[in-house]
Amino acid sequence: MPYIKVELTREGVTREQKQQLIKGITDLFTNILNKDPHLTHVVIQEIELDDWGYAGEQSSVLRERGITADKK
Amino acid sequence: MPYIKVELTREGVTREQKQQLIKGITDLFTNILNKDPHLTHVVIQEIELDDWGYAGEQSSVLRERGITADKK
Amino acid sequence: MPYIKVELTREGVTREQKQQLIKGITDLFTNILNKDPHLTHVVIQEIELDDWGYAGEQSSVLRERGITADKK
Amino acid sequence: MPYIKVELTREGVTREQKQQLIKGITDLFTNILNKDPHLTHVVIQEIELDDWGYAGEQSSVLRERGITADKK
Amino acid sequence: MPYIKVELTREGVTREQKQQLIKGITDLFTNILNKDPHLTHVVIQEIELDDWGYAGEQSSVLRERGITADKK
Amino acid sequence: MPYIKVELTREGVTREQKQQLIKGITDLFTNILNKDPHLTHVVIQEIELDDWGYAGEQSSVLRERGITADKK
Repeated sequence: MPYIKVELTREGVTREQKQQLIKGITDLFTNILNKDPHLTHVVIQEIELDDWGYAGEQSSVLRERGITADKK
Repeated sequence: MPYIKVELTREGVTREQKQQLIKGITDLFTNILNKDPHLTHVVIQEIELDDWGYAGEQSSVLRERGITADKK
Repeated sequence: MPYIKVELTREGVTREQKQQLIKGITDLFTNILNKDPHLTHVVIQEIELDDWGYAGEQSSVLRERGITADKK
Repeated sequence: MPYIKVELTREGVTREQKQQLIKGITDLFTNILNKDPHLTHVVIQEIELDDWGYAGEQSSVLRERGITADKK
Repeated sequence: MPYIKVELTREGVTREQKQQLIKGITDLFTNILNKDPHLTHVVIQEIELDDWGYAGEQSSVLRERGITADKK
Repeated sequence: MPYIKVELTREGVTREQKQQLIKGITDLFTNILNKDPHLTHVVIQEIELDDWGYAGEQSSVLRERGITADKK
């Protein structure tokens, strides 16, 4: 019975990317722990940039300064 | 001090049904554990069908196939 | 697909009371929203009294002062 | 590595107030626990008044009766 | 800035399996969304079998009846 | 009605530090948003180092390498 909650900033994640995340996470639990996918729930919650604080700043402010969450 | 978080797919739950859930859950904690309702908070979060994954699929895709969360 | 997370202070809730909460909450979702119990997960998390703050105080301190979460 | 999730009723919190909450909470973890702000994430989630139950009632109903969450 | 919370029943997950889950989930966010792993946090919470309810029953009761969460 | 959930690695936080966090966070909500402290709940959850993943690694592994969450 895994339940996985994903929170990430709302920055244009597409429906297809969400599906890939759901499939990928579910498969990890099947492959590593032999969990029944019918008992695995994955919930995605997108958070507005004003509502996610990092290092004491709103992400919206960080983005205005050119600071992203992208892999370097 | 109970806090109860409810997450469910956004599929037309009405204001009255939410009130029934809030009242019903609060009463359970009073009846079973003698909890003061003034210390009991219930938070409901509706999740878009694209954002709830089950068995590796988005609920929106499952619904298109006629697979619902209804009691059989 | 409801998922319900219960957080409450660790103050001697018994296994039987947990079962009553799980059954009662699951039944509410079946009765009010016609949800399939096989898609309803209820997770209970007990929190130490030092770790639950209310009105700016640890519950352990409130309990020492005779302030409980019991229904009056 | 602190992660802090704030849930509060949606009642006109401004962008500036959110920034003050994020800065204030992050500073607490630096000042009290010496945590690196670059490892501290604060996520704010506003909850509709219909979706927050207190004492068995929706906050929207409590507000109609003049019962607020304001400090007396 | 993804934050991922994993809840699963406490049934002998090893340290190595936890590491595989953490690595696997983090890689998904890098591969699908190009997220910086230094902004990706994964938190695992194991739940006692008495505390996870499914279909209105405690998982501990289900396990006594031979009903597991294993993939068939 | 704010509810604040704090998750942090279990690394020797004392009872007094928890009390400072609870008082400090509650005061922020009173000072910034005029929230009644009697409607403000703060829940602290300490997470084992094996269970908190950062940058794809368990914090326990990062600590063995001398990588901490301390402010530089």
